[in-house]
Amino acid sequence: MTSPAHAQSAPLSALPTDLPPVERRAVVPQGFVAAGATCGIKASGRPDLAVFAATGRPAAAAAVFTQNAFAAAPVRLSQAHLAATEPAGRGGYGWAQGVISTSGSANAATGPDGDADQAAIAGLFAAALGTSADRTLAMSTGIIGTRLPLDKVAAGIESVVGDGLLSAEPAGLESAAEALRTTDSRAKIASVSVTVFGTGIAGGKVTVAGAAKGVGMIHPNMATMLSVVLTDAAIDPATLHALLRRAAERTWNQLSVDGDTSTNDTVIALASGGSGVAFGADGADPDLLGQAIEAVARDLARQQAADGEGATTLITCQVSGARDDVEARAVARAVISSSLVKAAAHGRDPNWGRVAGAAGNAAALVDPGQLRIGIAGHPVYDGALGGPIPFDREAARAAMEGEELLIRLDLGVGHGSGEAFGCDLTEQYVIENSEYTT
Amino acid sequence: MTSPAHAQSAPLSALPTDLPPVERRAVVPQGFVAAGATCGIKASGRPDLAVFAATGRPAAAAAVFTQNAFAAAPVRLSQAHLAATEPAGRGGYGWAQGVISTSGSANAATGPDGDADQAAIAGLFAAALGTSADRTLAMSTGIIGTRLPLDKVAAGIESVVGDGLLSAEPAGLESAAEALRTTDSRAKIASVSVTVFGTGIAGGKVTVAGAAKGVGMIHPNMATMLSVVLTDAAIDPATLHALLRRAAERTWNQLSVDGDTSTNDTVIALASGGSGVAFGADGADPDLLGQAIEAVARDLARQQAADGEGATTLITCQVSGARDDVEARAVARAVISSSLVKAAAHGRDPNWGRVAGAAGNAAALVDPGQLRIGIAGHPVYDGALGGPIPFDREAARAAMEGEELLIRLDLGVGHGSGEAFGCDLTEQYVIENSEYTT
Repeated sequence: MTSPAHAQSAPLSALPTDLPPVERRAVVPQGFVAAGATCGIKASGRPDLAVFAATGRPAAAAAVFTQNAFAAAPVRLSQAHLAATEPAGRGGYGWAQGVISTSGSANAATGPDGDADQAAIAGLFAAALGTSADRTLAMSTGIIGTRLPLDKVAAGIESVVGDGLLSAEPAGLESAAEALRTTDSRAKIASVSVTVFGTGIAGGKVTVAGAAKGVGMIHPNMATMLSVVLTDAAIDPATLHALLRRAAERTWNQLSVDGDTSTNDTVIALASGGSGVAFGADGADPDLLGQAIEAVARDLARQQAADGEGATTLITCQVSGARDDVEARAVARAVISSSLVKAAAHGRDPNWGRVAGAAGNAAALVDPGQLRIGIAGHPVYDGALGGPIPFDREAARAAMEGEELLIRLDLGVGHGSGEAFGCDLTEQYVIENSEYTT
Repeated sequence: MTSPAHAQSAPLSALPTDLPPVERRAVVPQGFVAAGATCGIKASGRPDLAVFAATGRPAAAAAVFTQNAFAAAPVRLSQAHLAATEPAGRGGYGWAQGVISTSGSANAATGPDGDADQAAIAGLFAAALGTSADRTLAMSTGIIGTRLPLDKVAAGIESVVGDGLLSAEPAGLESAAEALRTTDSRAKIASVSVTVFGTGIAGGKVTVAGAAKGVGMIHPNMATMLSVVLTDAAIDPATLHALLRRAAERTWNQLSVDGDTSTNDTVIALASGGSGVAFGADGADPDLLGQAIEAVARDLARQQAADGEGATTLITCQVSGARDDVEARAVARAVISSSLVKAAAHGRDPNWGRVAGAAGNAAALVDPGQLRIGIAGHPVYDGALGGPIPFDREAARAAMEGEELLIRLDLGVGHGSGEAFGCDLTEQYVIENSEYTT
């Protein structure tokens, strides 16, 4: 019942979430093992090979991939393998025994030779796991246009799978997450456990855990970055795919570090069924699992944004009052993608005009006469009150000093809401990316 | 008749142009006067008020404006005035006696107060020119969300128009171009003269001259940056509008400095008829004038890109072999807009993988098996030959040291071509934009 005049002084606070709480620690869901190792792709000698595997029968698998026309060899191989195990999924879902991830070379734009390399790696990996090649999936990240060193990867597979490094302990997932890294300053892990109560179905505890990498060449385009999400839920691949796509749309596709969509973006979700809790027909509501997957995805996306190349601040933009959720997300993404907003965030400058300008470029109904903007808790613009609002610039500047900057917009034209995650643009981003050796 | 093997070693050279040659000097077309002055909007004391006016009857006027939902007060006023003088044009064309441009404040997101300010300025300007308010147009640039100081602008109009500073000499256009600047390091002027031969029509020399500003918040979105283009051709407003839109689509809309579309983008073309050479029905082919306008627009866009905030290199991306010109332009724009390509250009790093990745994100058919890429004259990728081509990295690096970097792509799937203009991403861009005071 507040009038516009009262609305002016009310800060636009963070939107509430209905997602389950997330922990940033490694928990390996039942039915999986993981490990990371150094096989020598990277000149730095840092870990560069990660493996995630199901210990029992092949896991239900679903994935979302980059939309880039230069989709990398591991992306195309994974799509083909998913399609081979579940032709109805058209490459989006199927069954998989394990995922191998290499880092240091993207194996993108490498032509037929790159495809042959990736197929050879799949053959070696499948043999080590005791499965068929089409029940393996692959991801890779690193420099575009360089080949993977087959002999080193072969030796790496032997040492990780053959020598028994794979582990169901937290350390297994931690070392795998470590090996996903390229220019990431830290490994990224998130996990959620939810308890499903059984009334006519088998209840119990279900865990979702994920690892991710990515700090550059990150921009949403119906795709996302490298991540593996594991769950011990029992679920069919098609439903898992639907849950993953919805989560990616609301989280990873709302993430941007530098506006460049990678050739290698891949998120793979594997469900082992190890918890004994089934979702779907005759089981629990799949949305319960979907919320847990989204909670993990959202937290990983926030970790990725916070660790953007050169970044000092996570920028979260939350939008309410849009015509629908799609438009709310478009506005949020436009704001966190703006070079000028990102530079202003770096300078801790409450330059709301840049936020307004960025919002005005989104594919959404933005009415300057209805819009409200808040920066770090300070109302700065209210269209219904004539536009700019006097505010304490020094206090706003101080409030922008934290590790996370919240930019809030209310479009005042509907009930849609959404959010997006980015980071500030710093001199360090330019230095890292103009010196990164080809 | 070259085979793919021969095609490999052939460098992808610059695309030929059929546009008339451009000079970067001030020439005032017949029937116009111009001037710039300091009225005190900018705290720096630099020139901040520019006027362009027709000396005889109102000039045919056409304009293209920003698509930003936060279109500034001067944009909406100009659209309304054009619509008032030529309702059929829906705000895109009409008749105008003069254009007033202010810099230092964008007068965007300023609500009803900002609209009232702009209307008051139009009234003062019209009175000084001895015309009606709706025969004036306005542009402004500067900080979003700040008001224009009415008293200072009024005094400026009095000194420029009332005290007779307006001049048909080159110095008039030079001082006007100077007053358009904000963070531009230099004024931007281009002119073309073409001779039309009369066979059944009145032939003679026709001049097109333009001035432009813009080094930040520049990104194509069916819109463009601040520019005024003057010609002494005789042409109706609707045809002038069609010529301007075509030129903007191929030049200014292919320009990006930082991916941010401004709230104030405006290009206004005025045609005085002073040359006595008529285009259109019963006159010369309008395409002759269109080529001259495009030549001026292209050169101004290149000057704007080269002077991008913090830039050290103009990046030109030319694309051939696309399915059509629209897709060629989309690919060229994707390449010059990529933060990673821009950072690699700054590091003089022939990192063609980033070019391939950026091209793969464009809304166009890009087939990795058909694509060819050349950087600064060095072929680096040929899909038909398996992808990456060995090249002399040090020589390519040295070739990237010039003031202009040419990136060439041939998509190999059709006959469409196009180009786009950008600049490198430097630490200086970040410094300028994180310290720019709100």
